[in-house]
Amino acid sequence: MLVVAALGGNALLRRGEPLTAESQRANVKIAAQSLAGIVRAGHQLVITHGNGPQVGLLALQGAAYKPDEAYPLDVLGAETEGMIGYIIEQELENALDHDRPVATLLTQVLVDKDDPAFRKPTKFVGPVYDREEAETRAKAAGWHIAQDGDKWRRVVPSPKPLEIPDMRVLQLLLEQGVVVICAGGGGIPVLRRDDGSLIGVEAVIDKDAASALLARQLGADALLLLTDVDAIYRDFGKDTAESIHELTVDEARSLDLPAGSMGPKLEAAGNFAQSGGISGIGRLEDALAILERRAGTCVIN
Amino acid sequence: MLVVAALGGNALLRRGEPLTAESQRANVKIAAQSLAGIVRAGHQLVITHGNGPQVGLLALQGAAYKPDEAYPLDVLGAETEGMIGYIIEQELENALDHDRPVATLLTQVLVDKDDPAFRKPTKFVGPVYDREEAETRAKAAGWHIAQDGDKWRRVVPSPKPLEIPDMRVLQLLLEQGVVVICAGGGGIPVLRRDDGSLIGVEAVIDKDAASALLARQLGADALLLLTDVDAIYRDFGKDTAESIHELTVDEARSLDLPAGSMGPKLEAAGNFAQSGGISGIGRLEDALAILERRAGTCVIN
Repeated sequence: MLVVAALGGNALLRRGEPLTAESQRANVKIAAQSLAGIVRAGHQLVITHGNGPQVGLLALQGAAYKPDEAYPLDVLGAETEGMIGYIIEQELENALDHDRPVATLLTQVLVDKDDPAFRKPTKFVGPVYDREEAETRAKAAGWHIAQDGDKWRRVVPSPKPLEIPDMRVLQLLLEQGVVVICAGGGGIPVLRRDDGSLIGVEAVIDKDAASALLARQLGADALLLLTDVDAIYRDFGKDTAESIHELTVDEARSLDLPAGSMGPKLEAAGNFAQSGGISGIGRLEDALAILERRAGTCVIN
Repeated sequence: MLVVAALGGNALLRRGEPLTAESQRANVKIAAQSLAGIVRAGHQLVITHGNGPQVGLLALQGAAYKPDEAYPLDVLGAETEGMIGYIIEQELENALDHDRPVATLLTQVLVDKDDPAFRKPTKFVGPVYDREEAETRAKAAGWHIAQDGDKWRRVVPSPKPLEIPDMRVLQLLLEQGVVVICAGGGGIPVLRRDDGSLIGVEAVIDKDAASALLARQLGADALLLLTDVDAIYRDFGKDTAESIHELTVDEARSLDLPAGSMGPKLEAAGNFAQSGGISGIGRLEDALAILERRAGTCVIN
């Protein structure tokens, strides 16, 4: 099977950990072992990953040094594709004993300049702050901020991914048996100008949405959205809470979920399942078990 | 012909310019036009680039935000492959009217843990300072520093590149007609452990040396080392100064050059020419003319 596996933020950083190179590498080692299991089981694998904390960190580092020369979000996104892609590639190559080629490709993803997200930023990037500190920083740096749990964070536009222009290169590599890491952080957001040329834009694309688009464009058999929760739950947080083994697309869309991070995952899972593939949501460590429907929540058409 | 073109620092930043995203993009646009000429003339093209100013900038940004959580040079190198590779890829795709696939590959490059460079850092990274400021910063951050012209700069180890483990993926892409951007900043420096696994190391590899290795490993026909000087000069800076059109490997090695940046270029050019290819050194804008031996300095065996 051709499998697209999207690594959630927790693959790189557990809540409360400092965002150091060491902590990212330690977490990626765990992810690499899990993903190596999919390759060893004989499947073709494409890996995507989030970059919310990392792109926020790079923005803060730039502002701390020379705020007047801050880099735009498309360039920072490209930097995170380098940073995170490298660590995943190296740890996965090591986990596979350098038996299989692994390649990390920079990936631009096309968005629409008229996407309403540019008027209403919603995507969290960077660290959490108390409300007062968030407001002070927002005022100083021109941020939009929004509540994340009981804390506050910077938010940036998250337009819908429309097309992956580099698809041809990706397909060439997959045909040759290469494991590909791509579309990191949801891809580098770009607009198409009237003359057909591409130019970067200040945004961060949701990595689950980009991964579902990628899986559709590749004609993948399965999309795995890997996170730190073992499944989707009915009545999450109540005594009657119950994990869900399987959902149809319609059930997934009508499910009453508490506010949080599972919404975008279920939407992406539904979108891909509707195009004929199988979507799985669950724990990073269970990647192969989710693919084989022994763990996690499966969404089918 | 299969051509490896190495973009010097000036492709991204002219002396005295601020290292902003805008100035890098403006310079890369010029480079992209020149490189597109090589592709349009029917040649296969691999592009490499330097990262000295950029890796230094990222280190300074990190230190300005949280010095205790600074990222190691291998990770910063990977970030610059993302940042610079993205801008080159986008501008080259635009210059080629999106007629030809262009891919940017993260590239690890193997070095030796016993390389003497680890005991004697010589590679300049980051901005220039007056001596006093350089010494203050060196003391605070544990840098090594060295004189660069009449200013001072941070220096880091620059071990010799030995092997490019990702060569197989690169070759697959070239066979399919893809223009490849790789080994940015000389590649991400890695060591091989006793068990065969790879791990990053704190260093920055010379991009001309890495480009010569890459060209040899690929069996390329030509290596172009592109910079802001139109050729190698005999008696450079004197009244008798004269540009050199052609050098043999032996002549290149015995040439008496003033101290500066042409030494590593001539060494890389000689190393590649000795393996049977043609090396060219000259202005970025003259890429195709250098390849056709109408401009620059050519080194042959």
